[in-house]
Amino acid sequence: MRRKKGVEKMISVKEIAGITGAEVIGDPDIIISSVKSIEEAGEGDITFLANRKYISRAQETKASAVICSPLLKLEGKTTLIMENPYLGFAKVMQYFHPRKRATIGVDPTAMVSDTARVGVNVNIYAGVYIGENVVIGDEVDIMPGCYIGDNTVIDDNTLLYANVTVYHDCRIGACVIIHSGTVIGSDGFGFATDEKGGHHKIPQTGNVIVEDDVEIGSNCSIDRAVLGSTIIGAGTKLDNLIQIAHNVKIGKHTFVVAQVGISGSSTVGDQVILAGQAGIVGHVEIGDRSIIVAQAGVSNNVPAGEIYGGSPARPMMEMKRIFAVQAKLPQLRTLVKDMQKRIEALEAKLRESKGKQDHY
Amino acid sequence: MRRKKGVEKMISVKEIAGITGAEVIGDPDIIISSVKSIEEAGEGDITFLANRKYISRAQETKASAVICSPLLKLEGKTTLIMENPYLGFAKVMQYFHPRKRATIGVDPTAMVSDTARVGVNVNIYAGVYIGENVVIGDEVDIMPGCYIGDNTVIDDNTLLYANVTVYHDCRIGACVIIHSGTVIGSDGFGFATDEKGGHHKIPQTGNVIVEDDVEIGSNCSIDRAVLGSTIIGAGTKLDNLIQIAHNVKIGKHTFVVAQVGISGSSTVGDQVILAGQAGIVGHVEIGDRSIIVAQAGVSNNVPAGEIYGGSPARPMMEMKRIFAVQAKLPQLRTLVKDMQKRIEALEAKLRESKGKQDHY
Amino acid sequence: MRRKKGVEKMISVKEIAGITGAEVIGDPDIIISSVKSIEEAGEGDITFLANRKYISRAQETKASAVICSPLLKLEGKTTLIMENPYLGFAKVMQYFHPRKRATIGVDPTAMVSDTARVGVNVNIYAGVYIGENVVIGDEVDIMPGCYIGDNTVIDDNTLLYANVTVYHDCRIGACVIIHSGTVIGSDGFGFATDEKGGHHKIPQTGNVIVEDDVEIGSNCSIDRAVLGSTIIGAGTKLDNLIQIAHNVKIGKHTFVVAQVGISGSSTVGDQVILAGQAGIVGHVEIGDRSIIVAQAGVSNNVPAGEIYGGSPARPMMEMKRIFAVQAKLPQLRTLVKDMQKRIEALEAKLRESKGKQDHY
Repeated sequence: MRRKKGVEKMISVKEIAGITGAEVIGDPDIIISSVKSIEEAGEGDITFLANRKYISRAQETKASAVICSPLLKLEGKTTLIMENPYLGFAKVMQYFHPRKRATIGVDPTAMVSDTARVGVNVNIYAGVYIGENVVIGDEVDIMPGCYIGDNTVIDDNTLLYANVTVYHDCRIGACVIIHSGTVIGSDGFGFATDEKGGHHKIPQTGNVIVEDDVEIGSNCSIDRAVLGSTIIGAGTKLDNLIQIAHNVKIGKHTFVVAQVGISGSSTVGDQVILAGQAGIVGHVEIGDRSIIVAQAGVSNNVPAGEIYGGSPARPMMEMKRIFAVQAKLPQLRTLVKDMQKRIEALEAKLRESKGKQDHY
Repeated sequence: MRRKKGVEKMISVKEIAGITGAEVIGDPDIIISSVKSIEEAGEGDITFLANRKYISRAQETKASAVICSPLLKLEGKTTLIMENPYLGFAKVMQYFHPRKRATIGVDPTAMVSDTARVGVNVNIYAGVYIGENVVIGDEVDIMPGCYIGDNTVIDDNTLLYANVTVYHDCRIGACVIIHSGTVIGSDGFGFATDEKGGHHKIPQTGNVIVEDDVEIGSNCSIDRAVLGSTIIGAGTKLDNLIQIAHNVKIGKHTFVVAQVGISGSSTVGDQVILAGQAGIVGHVEIGDRSIIVAQAGVSNNVPAGEIYGGSPARPMMEMKRIFAVQAKLPQLRTLVKDMQKRIEALEAKLRESKGKQDHY
Repeated sequence: MRRKKGVEKMISVKEIAGITGAEVIGDPDIIISSVKSIEEAGEGDITFLANRKYISRAQETKASAVICSPLLKLEGKTTLIMENPYLGFAKVMQYFHPRKRATIGVDPTAMVSDTARVGVNVNIYAGVYIGENVVIGDEVDIMPGCYIGDNTVIDDNTLLYANVTVYHDCRIGACVIIHSGTVIGSDGFGFATDEKGGHHKIPQTGNVIVEDDVEIGSNCSIDRAVLGSTIIGAGTKLDNLIQIAHNVKIGKHTFVVAQVGISGSSTVGDQVILAGQAGIVGHVEIGDRSIIVAQAGVSNNVPAGEIYGGSPARPMMEMKRIFAVQAKLPQLRTLVKDMQKRIEALEAKLRESKGKQDHY
């Protein structure tokens, strides 16, 4: 996707309030021409404050306006107050940085099969390979070095960055973004082991379905199903270096953070958060709106709405109490050893005292 | 590898018994035309049941036949009984889905060095780069975007999916499958640090040897040796996103599950299982037929046949007992605190009682 | 980078002492023609010994000379003694294996934008894509299948192995090495979630700056900043499969080992070591010269010079004591249960004894 330096955009604080639904405190007529970080912002820039940690920096920012939460008051600044300042930031960023597309069409060095069907306003860059019977919708960008296997379907407005690989028979929805190095539809890890220890490959004959509005980061591996489909539900967002095994089904609007691994046939619900480096074993269910903490190792079902952490994982409330005791284990051990001595002393005294009593 | 929709295959249950060595209970003359999952199977389909968890679903399947274990009885179904139903499933899947190869030859847009030697019936797809003195055996498929460095050898019947990178001087055996995004032969992480904290690169001059019948998943990183070879033994299977450092040697018929990392110069035996996200430090030996549990952190040698888990890892039998106590740590702490009070009470009583005794 | 088998180099032990600063014990006139491992070395080879573990093997080596530490004496060998034999090994390896470059120029199949500026003695291999306004310095190698996005700058003497992806607007310093499959400048994982659970993408408009003398392994993911820059400091070395989130800043001469993940906006100091599979949460600071142990999970700032381990991580001295007690938890529990009984017995005896006393 070729990005051109566009002409500068200009918008008033009042108009930004209109886009974001924020309440203005201060001068609504200030003109904003770009979004910058708290530190880098100056005259004509807007910035945002979502984290209390940075309130002193925000107080000193040179930005002309600040989007912030009603809980974080800034003195003497033009502020746009909203419950969810991060959402306001997203909307302002989208206003200033809309997706820009080049108009290169199908590059003559791309290898597009005669049997492929390509929609209108599509950019297929140099060195792309499009297999037989592939169907590509309208307004799709497929950047250099991508490979699209036979019979795969890619729906409208989808963007594949350079060097993405999608194997045969897969379905990629509309408005999907896939970052470089990601592989979709590689074989699941399926082998049957014979009595001599040899491994026999189970052909992986299913596919991967990526639904609409999904974003997938770089260098992810999403395996095709052995039978049926591996599914990434609509609106779900994957970070980088994530392993999704065969026949996994992920629901809608779920976040999967970097380096998470999900083993075969497990199911993840809607609006779940799987934090970084967490691992999920095979054949379990992670309920809707649950949260799996970073580095957790989940080996059983997780009920909807629960927060699980630790390895092996358990409810985070429990886990926090366990972690608290763990942190003091040497002291606990010292206490126990001390108590042991006191018990021995008591036992000795009691024997002695018994001895004395027997003399009475 | 171009896959064509072949004509449908037909086979009787009796013939499947011949292929798999299963014993037929029910009608051996039923004709089977495809393999489906328990849920999706219908008339003319065969399915399989390996996991007791799914027995009720299998009882309700519409499949014409079910491959299953002698321990899992299904009423009123034509079943193919075998000790290892998963192996039966593999063989039936291989029957219905044999590897299919296109016959495209060497694509004119591929860059093949004049000094490379290419065998017969080889497919080299668009955009592939084959360096100097590369040797490629017969019946090899090298799909779009692959890079094969100078002097590398790839033996017969091997398949490289799109966008695989193999550096110079490596050796890839026969009947090997490598999935997209995998990098073989990148430099090991070797630097000597001087007294000022600067890092001096140690040229990595060895190579990687991948023996016959190995399968490597997508987005793996297998580094070349500093001197000598990093070796992946025959029949070993690697999942996705795996890190194999320089000079690692992995034996034969070993499973390495997704996101495992093996540090430099460590040795892994034959028929080992390294489960997902496990990490192995450098310079240790993992014995034959051992199992390393998911997320384990192995920092010492593991004897043959042992199961190790936890981080730091230890024998799993021990680790399970530790995990059990860990899970109850808050209760243990409460018990200890309660005992502490009881000891104090005992001590007080004994002092008091001693006092009383002294009055006698 | 095309590597030719050069003519064999010859150098005396005395000359090696000159290069490395080592002290020679034995015959300084021996001629060395290559570096080999302890096991493989023979007549005319030099090897090195840095690890006490391998001293018996070194004693039996057939190498003509051995670089080793003053602490590790080898009998009857010509040795080059130095405090840091690993550094000596690096220098000898660099002598025998200097970087060799082909002279292919810009391959006609590479897609180089008319607006790109390319320095002298640059090799741009087949199938490379160079976007608009890209600036490439002198003596740069960009190997097959690489993608360089618009406006990106790559400085002198840098080497990108095959299939590296660098997004638009990034800056890669001089003498940088980037291995295959690595993605630099992909979008950070930034979404604002609305009250209905929908995720709104925050355009990631910053970039990545890789400073001079950095080496990055294969299949790493380094995300561009949301605003500003993600920075990898000069001389820092990254291993494979590493996740660097948006707005992370890594200092100079730091080691990041394979499969580490660093979350958004965290800062890592100079000369830090982040060991394999460690995870760092967002918005924390890892102080200069600190060490984070393998698989650690860091959720708070780490002071300079400290060693942290465990998950959640804490100072390693503490953590080791915790691990030691953890390893003995079942025994501790048994001891506590035994003590509980002894307390009960004491209580019973005391009640009894009290009873008796009351009879007096």
